[in-house]
Amino acid sequence: MAAAAGVSITTVSDALNGKGRLPDATRRHVREVADRLGYRPSAAARTLRTGKSGLIGLTVTTYGDEPFTFTEFAYFAEMARAATSAALARGYALVILPATSRHDVWSNVALDGTVVIDPSDQDPVVSELVRQGLPVVSDGRPAGALPVTAWVDNDHEAAVLGILDHLAGAGARRIGLLTGTSTDTYTHLSTTAYLRWCERVGQDPVYEAYPAHDPCAGAVAADRLLARPDRPDAVYGLFDPNGTDLLAAARRYGLRVPDDLLLVCCSESTVYANTEPPITTLSLKPRRIGTAVVQLLIDAIEGVESDRPVEQVIPTELIVRTSSQRRSPRTTVSPPRSSEQT
Amino acid sequence: MAAAAGVSITTVSDALNGKGRLPDATRRHVREVADRLGYRPSAAARTLRTGKSGLIGLTVTTYGDEPFTFTEFAYFAEMARAATSAALARGYALVILPATSRHDVWSNVALDGTVVIDPSDQDPVVSELVRQGLPVVSDGRPAGALPVTAWVDNDHEAAVLGILDHLAGAGARRIGLLTGTSTDTYTHLSTTAYLRWCERVGQDPVYEAYPAHDPCAGAVAADRLLARPDRPDAVYGLFDPNGTDLLAAARRYGLRVPDDLLLVCCSESTVYANTEPPITTLSLKPRRIGTAVVQLLIDAIEGVESDRPVEQVIPTELIVRTSSQRRSPRTTVSPPRSSEQT
Repeated sequence: MAAAAGVSITTVSDALNGKGRLPDATRRHVREVADRLGYRPSAAARTLRTGKSGLIGLTVTTYGDEPFTFTEFAYFAEMARAATSAALARGYALVILPATSRHDVWSNVALDGTVVIDPSDQDPVVSELVRQGLPVVSDGRPAGALPVTAWVDNDHEAAVLGILDHLAGAGARRIGLLTGTSTDTYTHLSTTAYLRWCERVGQDPVYEAYPAHDPCAGAVAADRLLARPDRPDAVYGLFDPNGTDLLAAARRYGLRVPDDLLLVCCSESTVYANTEPPITTLSLKPRRIGTAVVQLLIDAIEGVESDRPVEQVIPTELIVRTSSQRRSPRTTVSPPRSSEQT
Repeated sequence: MAAAAGVSITTVSDALNGKGRLPDATRRHVREVADRLGYRPSAAARTLRTGKSGLIGLTVTTYGDEPFTFTEFAYFAEMARAATSAALARGYALVILPATSRHDVWSNVALDGTVVIDPSDQDPVVSELVRQGLPVVSDGRPAGALPVTAWVDNDHEAAVLGILDHLAGAGARRIGLLTGTSTDTYTHLSTTAYLRWCERVGQDPVYEAYPAHDPCAGAVAADRLLARPDRPDAVYGLFDPNGTDLLAAARRYGLRVPDDLLLVCCSESTVYANTEPPITTLSLKPRRIGTAVVQLLIDAIEGVESDRPVEQVIPTELIVRTSSQRRSPRTTVSPPRSSEQT
């Protein structure tokens, strides 16, 4: 590397680690040579030199000690995959900790830093890691004064308002919400955005909240929402399985989607392109988030000066499918069909 | 748990850990109660009791010290996702180590055991881990005397023979192979199956081998294979990107797929359902493999007596698409079209 760049080994090291006092041109030149040679920083070599472990953690702390196999949800699986790739590409090992991780148990693992997904508002894991002087990057902006090193998130309020306007534009008169009982900012901001929208347009809120790590609870909550006397004619569900939860509940009550009930859910799952009918989904772009959190974490661990902002908002995407589009602008309300059990 | 099952704490522990001398009925009863209560074994509690770390490693050792961001390949991504889920469900953290993992660098990580994907024939990482007394489960049967605790694999010889017969049945007269230069058993068994088939049917082998961790080398090898004077009229590619590699090379030489060239590749990627034309793929079922290797590894770590065999062969699936089906039994050979560069 040094020979190819025509500089000293120290200069190469300083240039790649963002250290020392080098002219920008030299730093740029060394980085170009490194790229051309396909050089990748070796955490292995760095570990021997610095005493760091080369390990970074990833965990979901939202549900405290509740067991939660989070990679079975498409969002977490895609996010973890991107995070793994980003870690491997910079020579780090990613430790995917159980959601039940308590710092007193896993503290024997010498992590250089940790990615925490959707921390709750007074997250003890985040506080303890920060107290130990370890970098913490959160997926989801921290609530209140939670002292993370950096965060990556979406603009959840804008996303929810966009969905509600989309549903109202398709003819919805009473929009319901399926939400969670946890205190992470995703759930919190999405719910308050919904309540404010209701206030603005003069609609009474119609929502059910459930512990989102429990898939059975989602089916029950969807059923409860559609069994209400003030039954909504459109629903937005905040969690991955809510689309199928709501479709099943609609079928039980003889409601046709989209004719009697418009549906949108937040999901990364491709199954919603092939449900009957296909369901409109909000994508939070977990691959971009997973890559960004790991880049920020490794920058913090290595003390690299980078031009990456430490608070990043990633755009969302609404993928509009049949479930949220009325077939005609003036649909005749059909009589309820007999209940179908599957 | 013990109260609910009406037995002692020791009995619960023995029943769930497969230890002690308990009547089968008691063991079954305790497990049923555990299932009903949603009990999951806590590696955290176990760690405190046993001094084990609760960490299991996963790595690809095939390419030695070559950097290899393996989760960018669909097979490894799906396998790692399933392995992560299986580990989390049993309360373990999965450490996804860089492919460049050298035991002298990562040996400071106290792993309870490691999953090694596609070890080479004299893999130093496997030997060293086993020497340290740590369980090693390999994805891919070990070559020679590599002393793994257990392995999970496919029947690669049967899979390749099935593909070659499928291509011959579609009218192929000279079948080529795109293979790797590495010494793992996947590459080795697939290649020898091809060579034996050639000998049996009296066809001269037509193949190119390349270092499969390097995506650019795959494109070059595909090009070389189709540039040969004894150009094949059908090709099977062993690695994930080979379908698109071969399609691009075919386009450069004005060969139409499937009319002039039949194609199959081994891949888990859904892109091949939507290429022009869609490409027939062999699936190795990485999710089943990822789950099985972690179950076997945790059984070995915990000394659980289980009825899972320590050598497991998972069936493969050939997903037949347009690229390996001749449109008519007697296709007229068309004149080569002018080369299309994209």
